Amino acid sequence: MSTTLPTRPLDSAPARTVVAPVVPSRSRLRPLGLDEVRITGGFWGERQAVNAAHTLSHILGRLESEGWLPNFDRAAAGTLPAGRRGREFSDSEVYKYLEAAAWEIGRHDDAELDRTFRSVVDRVAAAQEADGYLNTEFGRIGQQPRWSDLEWGHELYCLGHLFQAAVARERTRPGADDGLLLIARRAADLVCEVFGPDGLPAFCGHPEIEAALAELARATGDERYAAQAALFVTRRGHETLADIEWGRRYFQDDIPVREATALSGHAVRANYLAAGAVDVAVEGGDDDLLASLRAQWTRTRGRRTYITGGQGSHHQDEAFGDDWELPSDRAYSETCAGIASVMFSWRLLLSGGQAAHADLIERTLFNVVATSPSADGRSFFYANTLHQRVPGVVPDPDETSPRASSSLRAPWFEVSCCPPNVARTLASLDAYVATADDRGIQIHQFAPAEIRATLDDGRDVSLDVATRYPSDGVVRVTVNHAADEAWTLSLRVPEWAEEATLRVWSDGAVVESAPVSAGWAAVTRAFRAGDTVELELPMAPRLVVPDPRIDAVRGCVAVERGPEVWALESVDLRHGADVGDVVLNAEVAPIEGDGRVWVSVTDRTADTGGWPYGDATAAPVGDPRRVALVPYHDWGNRGPSTMRVWMPTA
Amino acid sequence: MSTTLPTRPLDSAPARTVVAPVVPSRSRLRPLGLDEVRITGGFWGERQAVNAAHTLSHILGRLESEGWLPNFDRAAAGTLPAGRRGREFSDSEVYKYLEAAAWEIGRHDDAELDRTFRSVVDRVAAAQEADGYLNTEFGRIGQQPRWSDLEWGHELYCLGHLFQAAVARERTRPGADDGLLLIARRAADLVCEVFGPDGLPAFCGHPEIEAALAELARATGDERYAAQAALFVTRRGHETLADIEWGRRYFQDDIPVREATALSGHAVRANYLAAGAVDVAVEGGDDDLLASLRAQWTRTRGRRTYITGGQGSHHQDEAFGDDWELPSDRAYSETCAGIASVMFSWRLLLSGGQAAHADLIERTLFNVVATSPSADGRSFFYANTLHQRVPGVVPDPDETSPRASSSLRAPWFEVSCCPPNVARTLASLDAYVATADDRGIQIHQFAPAEIRATLDDGRDVSLDVATRYPSDGVVRVTVNHAADEAWTLSLRVPEWAEEATLRVWSDGAVVESAPVSAGWAAVTRAFRAGDTVELELPMAPRLVVPDPRIDAVRGCVAVERGPEVWALESVDLRHGADVGDVVLNAEVAPIEGDGRVWVSVTDRTADTGGWPYGDATAAPVGDPRRVALVPYHDWGNRGPSTMRVWMPTA
Repeated sequence: MSTTLPTRPLDSAPARTVVAPVVPSRSRLRPLGLDEVRITGGFWGERQAVNAAHTLSHILGRLESEGWLPNFDRAAAGTLPAGRRGREFSDSEVYKYLEAAAWEIGRHDDAELDRTFRSVVDRVAAAQEADGYLNTEFGRIGQQPRWSDLEWGHELYCLGHLFQAAVARERTRPGADDGLLLIARRAADLVCEVFGPDGLPAFCGHPEIEAALAELARATGDERYAAQAALFVTRRGHETLADIEWGRRYFQDDIPVREATALSGHAVRANYLAAGAVDVAVEGGDDDLLASLRAQWTRTRGRRTYITGGQGSHHQDEAFGDDWELPSDRAYSETCAGIASVMFSWRLLLSGGQAAHADLIERTLFNVVATSPSADGRSFFYANTLHQRVPGVVPDPDETSPRASSSLRAPWFEVSCCPPNVARTLASLDAYVATADDRGIQIHQFAPAEIRATLDDGRDVSLDVATRYPSDGVVRVTVNHAADEAWTLSLRVPEWAEEATLRVWSDGAVVESAPVSAGWAAVTRAFRAGDTVELELPMAPRLVVPDPRIDAVRGCVAVERGPEVWALESVDLRHGADVGDVVLNAEVAPIEGDGRVWVSVTDRTADTGGWPYGDATAAPVGDPRRVALVPYHDWGNRGPSTMRVWMPTA
Repeated sequence: MSTTLPTRPLDSAPARTVVAPVVPSRSRLRPLGLDEVRITGGFWGERQAVNAAHTLSHILGRLESEGWLPNFDRAAAGTLPAGRRGREFSDSEVYKYLEAAAWEIGRHDDAELDRTFRSVVDRVAAAQEADGYLNTEFGRIGQQPRWSDLEWGHELYCLGHLFQAAVARERTRPGADDGLLLIARRAADLVCEVFGPDGLPAFCGHPEIEAALAELARATGDERYAAQAALFVTRRGHETLADIEWGRRYFQDDIPVREATALSGHAVRANYLAAGAVDVAVEGGDDDLLASLRAQWTRTRGRRTYITGGQGSHHQDEAFGDDWELPSDRAYSETCAGIASVMFSWRLLLSGGQAAHADLIERTLFNVVATSPSADGRSFFYANTLHQRVPGVVPDPDETSPRASSSLRAPWFEVSCCPPNVARTLASLDAYVATADDRGIQIHQFAPAEIRATLDDGRDVSLDVATRYPSDGVVRVTVNHAADEAWTLSLRVPEWAEEATLRVWSDGAVVESAPVSAGWAAVTRAFRAGDTVELELPMAPRLVVPDPRIDAVRGCVAVERGPEVWALESVDLRHGADVGDVVLNAEVAPIEGDGRVWVSVTDRTADTGGWPYGDATAAPVGDPRRVALVPYHDWGNRGPSTMRVWMPTA
């Protein structure tokens, strides 16, 4: 039993094709794909089922009704720009839908979905121009010329999502005759020609294509795409793009990636760029760049990340704030920024094998990604505030909402990046559960799952993971086969788990048992069939205190249980009461009951209406009482309410 | 001696023309104009001198060089829209300059400024169309049609500022032959025709014209203008304007003015509208509307106002946040919102005579209006943050800055509403010092001043105010004449003054002396020449605790001294230290020394770089030491620095 992973050089290449979104050609850990890991139920399995059953068709319906998919038909018919609908980046939502559908088809052979997929691909294909160019917003008579608005045009951004869709298809259905990979390659070839070393010395205002080109190179073996990704990353940060109201920091053109010390600017852009830069660093053996990105991740996590894992403090420019600037009530914490953060963390995890990266992924998955969709998978949070001061307004289900004005989930937005981003993430989530190296398997995320993998040294392993996590903290991994030689099974011990225990069962008896601390709990053993490694995590609710540099939540505590952040929602208070009317008694430990977490609160005196600065007012009054909290990812599902994650203490 | 003002019905009309920006036809208190009150020096006198000597010419220079004044020449030459520069509301800055210049000419006869004034009026006059229409952005071939974009076009807003300039000129130079009043009346007549009872049932997306039309009616006696102001106020709030990303609340078209419970939406718009609505309520005898506006003022002051008096918590839409949403670091607190708040408060003060309205005016003048301009009057804060986390970047003096991105004062902005707004406020500030009624004089703001007024019953009074306020807290009002009958001199006692004393001196001896509390300290006496009423206010620095509902500053204290808020600025810390590196020892009283206020602080431990939620970190370490604070209105004058008004306690 050990708490660290064995050292392995970064440059060992994985042995085989992996059915996963990110497949570095060299990495510390090799991702296990959808054919190797299958989530079989539980918290994430249920969400994947809703995603497959409802979200994908909901998205497709909106892509049709909003005109974003018909834009491709108009392009093919040569009638654009007449009738074009949607924002300049609406093509990308079609591509993200295709990516999500590709992964879903890869998870469960669904002939109807495959037919739908192919029909959408056909409509996209028809819109591609002879030289490979593909975008419904630019380049035609009556439209702006191609590449004429790199700051805001999103042409390369859209193509990035196209490439990711094609990679997903190629990895789940290698050599499929739908033509999506060819469409992507023709567009990528054009990009390399136009923006190559001798081409336009520019890049896209919205990073995305960098990681996508790197992955297209990995999927096709065509090194030009990786070189183009590297060019895009290197060119950035020299004030090439035009200045804008919020400065070039908005699109990370204020400072070269390698010189940055933290993520800054638009939070989705920053994380997409960082993810692509990791790919470029890994593929190019640029260890200095990789080290810089690790340091940026660490500072961003330590000073610019919400307790939910959410990132982005500014509504105005959807951007990171300064260090320690993390307002709860104006938390933007865009769903897509959470997804992009997972992408960045995952790449660092693969390259370095540090549990902290998987920790942040878990936190972000449970408290940002899981928060966005409603239980029925047909409405979404775009922004994820940590403090709702006034009850929201129920969105009209037939209308397209502005992106972040409502405090309730909306079926669609004018800027609808989040719904298909959630869909593609959930449809490929199995690929984020576990990894392999030549000595064993690492389990990063806990879900009921079947793992059927081959170690890098050729040995097959078969594992079943059983758990009700996060309802309870026991994770049992059963080995289905005997091994002659020892190999290592590593389970992540989350940073919040202060008293975790690892046990090894064999023949119905515990043969090893030891406390384990945050990091890796590794068992090296010549496993016998039926051997079970059991990780027991402490699931008592915890009061969490913020670093006092975070001004916005000074004097408050939050409640966590396992990986979930919990929140106080007004629908759980006495009729008419508001979450601002109570203070939390921090000396009283939270307890569990009826599947909820209960905290002790006391009312405070009402507002006197006077000048609010002078002597302290609003003192606690009355007797303490218990109120139930709700998992943050479930808030807002019971109608308009107020909510707060951080609760002031008495 | 009494602490309340004698009751008087609202509908007593003032007896004579007043040289002031706001002259209600009925009011509790009658404003005293520039010919009745003259600030002779001190804090505000110095700022008025800088305004006259530097700011006015600075503004005019920019209006020329930015092309905003030449737009009128192009209009007159018939060459527009070619060459038009500036935003859609740039005409208004020319008008605000004219208003400022008119007041300044009224204060000090300045022949050169008068010539300049006339030349600008001539250029404006030449641009007016035959039917009275006047705007350089709309209505010509190649421009949008007149009144076609009421949401964003600002046509009526611009005319409002034109009317206010004309009123200022007419009151300071009645019957002047420059023609400005005629220009304004022709435009106002057109507005009444186009938007009258049988005209377009609409209004401007940016309120301003309401108060301006009311004042034009008062200045000209033409009731049509007052009726049009009432129509504009009444029409608002019924979702007439188009919806926008931030909702109709942005321009106060979500709810009728009379039904609102607090100011909301864009903070400048909200306050301008409220000011105009008070005018409409007062002129129309609409006491219900007036009562609603008073209640809105009270809730806005109690829950949506910064300690500086600043208003507006959102950068995104320059808007009020929800109740208690007052982030220091994202405080927008636009300079113009502060000025607009003074306009609203002043009208309520005139109508009701409550000292609380003068209190907020004082707070806002010292901590928002005085904060905006630099010492040389040639650069300005647009937004007024209460917490600067990173040192700002020195603006290029030759460039026009974005409006709020720099933490340092900038000479001009693309949206340059604030510089001329500050200028017109300072140039007319004498008119906010004192009022009269039929029984006496009320002094609201403390400055060295000469007051030569006539009570409503016809008696003349002559007073000299001597004070070094806010450097010290003694205000001496000497009566220059004897009176046969008693009259009442009332001095405001600010809400922060916990132990104030009022003394009456006669013949070198104290004849009356009593503690007075917040509100009014009134002396009714048959004054003899040389009698002096002396108010002594407590000027020891005070630690101020926020209402605990204000999440953003929980666990912090601020320091005030007199009407000034003080701030910790990094240039006053050890080299390289940041205002985030220390905590304040609240049990140690702040002290004065070397003209500064000193507080006790302790360093805290450095950032560990880890996950910032769990156990408290960053504990205080080392010995307490004293550091000097700076008056908030003076911060940012010593180069890039970090700053905080609210300091966390140990």
